[in-house]
Amino acid sequence: MSKEIPYKIYLEESEMPKEWYNVRADMTKKPAPLLNPGTGKPMTAEELGVVFCDELVKQELDETTPYIPIPEEIRNFYKMYRPSPLVRAYCLEEKLGTPAKIYYKFEGNNTSGSHKLNSAIAQAYYAKKQGLKGVTTETGAGQWGTALSMACSYLGLDCKVFMVKVSYEQKPFRREVMRTYGASVTPSPSMDTEVGRKILEEFPGTNGSLGCAISEAVEVAVKSEGYRYVLGSVLNQVLLHQSVIGLETMAALKKYDIKPDMIIGCAGGGSNLGGLISPFMGEKLRGEADYRIIAVEPASCPSFTRGTYAYDFCDTGKVCPLSKMYTLGSGFIPAPNHAGGLRYHGMSTTLSELYNQGLMEARSVKQTEVFAAAEQFARVEGILPAPESSHAIKVAIDEALKCKETGEEKTIVFGLTGTGYFDMYAYEAFHDGKMTDYIPSDEEIAASLANLPKVEG
Amino acid sequence: MSKEIPYKIYLEESEMPKEWYNVRADMTKKPAPLLNPGTGKPMTAEELGVVFCDELVKQELDETTPYIPIPEEIRNFYKMYRPSPLVRAYCLEEKLGTPAKIYYKFEGNNTSGSHKLNSAIAQAYYAKKQGLKGVTTETGAGQWGTALSMACSYLGLDCKVFMVKVSYEQKPFRREVMRTYGASVTPSPSMDTEVGRKILEEFPGTNGSLGCAISEAVEVAVKSEGYRYVLGSVLNQVLLHQSVIGLETMAALKKYDIKPDMIIGCAGGGSNLGGLISPFMGEKLRGEADYRIIAVEPASCPSFTRGTYAYDFCDTGKVCPLSKMYTLGSGFIPAPNHAGGLRYHGMSTTLSELYNQGLMEARSVKQTEVFAAAEQFARVEGILPAPESSHAIKVAIDEALKCKETGEEKTIVFGLTGTGYFDMYAYEAFHDGKMTDYIPSDEEIAASLANLPKVEG
Repeated sequence: MSKEIPYKIYLEESEMPKEWYNVRADMTKKPAPLLNPGTGKPMTAEELGVVFCDELVKQELDETTPYIPIPEEIRNFYKMYRPSPLVRAYCLEEKLGTPAKIYYKFEGNNTSGSHKLNSAIAQAYYAKKQGLKGVTTETGAGQWGTALSMACSYLGLDCKVFMVKVSYEQKPFRREVMRTYGASVTPSPSMDTEVGRKILEEFPGTNGSLGCAISEAVEVAVKSEGYRYVLGSVLNQVLLHQSVIGLETMAALKKYDIKPDMIIGCAGGGSNLGGLISPFMGEKLRGEADYRIIAVEPASCPSFTRGTYAYDFCDTGKVCPLSKMYTLGSGFIPAPNHAGGLRYHGMSTTLSELYNQGLMEARSVKQTEVFAAAEQFARVEGILPAPESSHAIKVAIDEALKCKETGEEKTIVFGLTGTGYFDMYAYEAFHDGKMTDYIPSDEEIAASLANLPKVEG
Repeated sequence: MSKEIPYKIYLEESEMPKEWYNVRADMTKKPAPLLNPGTGKPMTAEELGVVFCDELVKQELDETTPYIPIPEEIRNFYKMYRPSPLVRAYCLEEKLGTPAKIYYKFEGNNTSGSHKLNSAIAQAYYAKKQGLKGVTTETGAGQWGTALSMACSYLGLDCKVFMVKVSYEQKPFRREVMRTYGASVTPSPSMDTEVGRKILEEFPGTNGSLGCAISEAVEVAVKSEGYRYVLGSVLNQVLLHQSVIGLETMAALKKYDIKPDMIIGCAGGGSNLGGLISPFMGEKLRGEADYRIIAVEPASCPSFTRGTYAYDFCDTGKVCPLSKMYTLGSGFIPAPNHAGGLRYHGMSTTLSELYNQGLMEARSVKQTEVFAAAEQFARVEGILPAPESSHAIKVAIDEALKCKETGEEKTIVFGLTGTGYFDMYAYEAFHDGKMTDYIPSDEEIAASLANLPKVEG
């Protein structure tokens, strides 16, 4: 039985995107600007330039240019591990007995183990071009830190990574991969920064959070000559770079005349989801096509589904600009039993605005259900998925099973952001029946939200 | 600067091999037969059928059929993770400043992390077809065990894995991956088998060896109703299945009119090397083309370069047939500081015969040099290589640097068998300067070889 659609659709190198797509250009109501926490006014390019590279500041603030050329050096680096395959999940479909057609865009075939490399190489490239010595960053599950280490090593930039303490401990081998690429890795909060010392004093036994680690990385960047800070998610520039995922996905689908009914992606800060859906959202915004777009988040860190849409601090130390987004409050720290990434208290401003406009849905799923879906997927599709990616798998399976009930032949596309090789402690807990679910109470979320900054907008 | 040859050459699904290639068919002098250790006579199909599946016994003994059809079910499974890319190492070439053109066939893009899945699915398929309940096997570094677990889980077969104790301890997460795929994993030597108990009594603190683990797995297969034993390397059937690597490589090269000067592969039992070189060796045997073919082995387990070509036991417990091969003696156990696989005391009989006929070369390399090459490769090619694969990287780099001296534009193809995500302890030792080299003394090898069985041939 030969299949009309191959198991894996690979674009030719010549079909790879030459421009990133900036979804903000097609939004009538734009995402809210970043604000200076001191003045309450929109951050200027000059102010942002203290923290970020100049070219990235331009990209961050550009709301009007729909297509931005990808520099040739970055396109060549992309060719090292891209195009990534769009996989038809024939085996999963058969196992589920669903009439739905399931596709996933697999971003895990590179050593960072995820899509994060798409933006890491772009940010490192612009830092190098500006003549900087190095960059600082934070990492949660370690995927972003690994990706940035790879990009910096390739370009000969120094790389300092603050890794959320609980992940540092749960994923000891991640540090070794980063070291292989020559990066320095510090568990956060640390005694190396003012903000780290302050947080440790206030919460001595803390497991850390992305919000803390961001504060530390920003402090080091601002205080070190020739350094800037880079971030793997949340920012507009990151969604821009990650649009390469969605553009490739769309090109692969169009090559075979496939029209998806829904696009599903996991959402932490929004880098994967934003990148995957951007061009589809663009068609939706321009009235050219309609798609259901579903963000999937952990029930233990449910910013879209239980957060509030408001200006908030991006980091725990409150050194970053204010951002209008769905947030659980900058002091929110997910329970330590939550494995993997998707731990950020907030969300991309662009995605927040799109969600607020009703252009996409969001769903939260429990950790044990996510790992059950991960194992089911691994057994038939032969890929061991990252816990983050498995949030999308869970909802894709749910939707495919609905199709089984109704008999509808829907086409489901989801983002498989990465592999779970460094998440075996979590898999072990799951196998041993020791994994638990944690859902924050309304009171807990309300308490965290009580500390939102007072800002109009 | 656009490249004429893409960074990654992917075949279309329609270009994937539909038949395996059996290099023995083109050999004038065939590999020596397996012998019954009791009678000293060639093993019959009936005798082998006690241990192996019937169809695999046929393949094991078939010295005349050059092409054997790949069943459609296996071809469909292959499509889940194949074709694998043939990668042009543009970035490595640039870094080395060599005029050589370097290509590698990358087999690591599946959860087993290596080429082992190519034979695992074939062996599991024939076991299932024969109506068996399950299979037993041994695993060293864990790649074969993971691959077999994946294949068995897909087909609904039970899978019992004996894992060399030192690897079991160095690679705790490998066990969890196998559990994800529903396999049972026992560190070897164990108290579960007669041979395991005997070995433990004689060598209480032993780190285990592939030879021990094979004995245990064979014992359990023979004693359990509805079970057979399967092996991930050494055997003719394994080389046959792995020929898919070489066939794809050759098809990809021919698609772009590339004529390689040398083919380099790491060699433990010979599964990867044999698979990679088979079709090239075939052309050589038929006088259609000439290639340099280089086997690379660890200096700590140098069967080709320092072993002897003789009949020997395949396993420590001496329960398996005798095989004529380059061997260090069935009691040889590599030093515990040796990381990763390539720990087998012997070698594929087919490769041994080809080497003995002078049709290929062999080289041994030291562990610390191998990790230095691995790190150099990772930093420019973005793939974290397995220690096994890095043996081939080391020699490919050496050859490319020779071209730099001579100015020759040679085309080098090597096999990148897998990824090193589960080898981070070894990378850590390397980074910390704690990795050492071990080269067995002549006396040590002579002592081990003193126990060769007395057999004519």
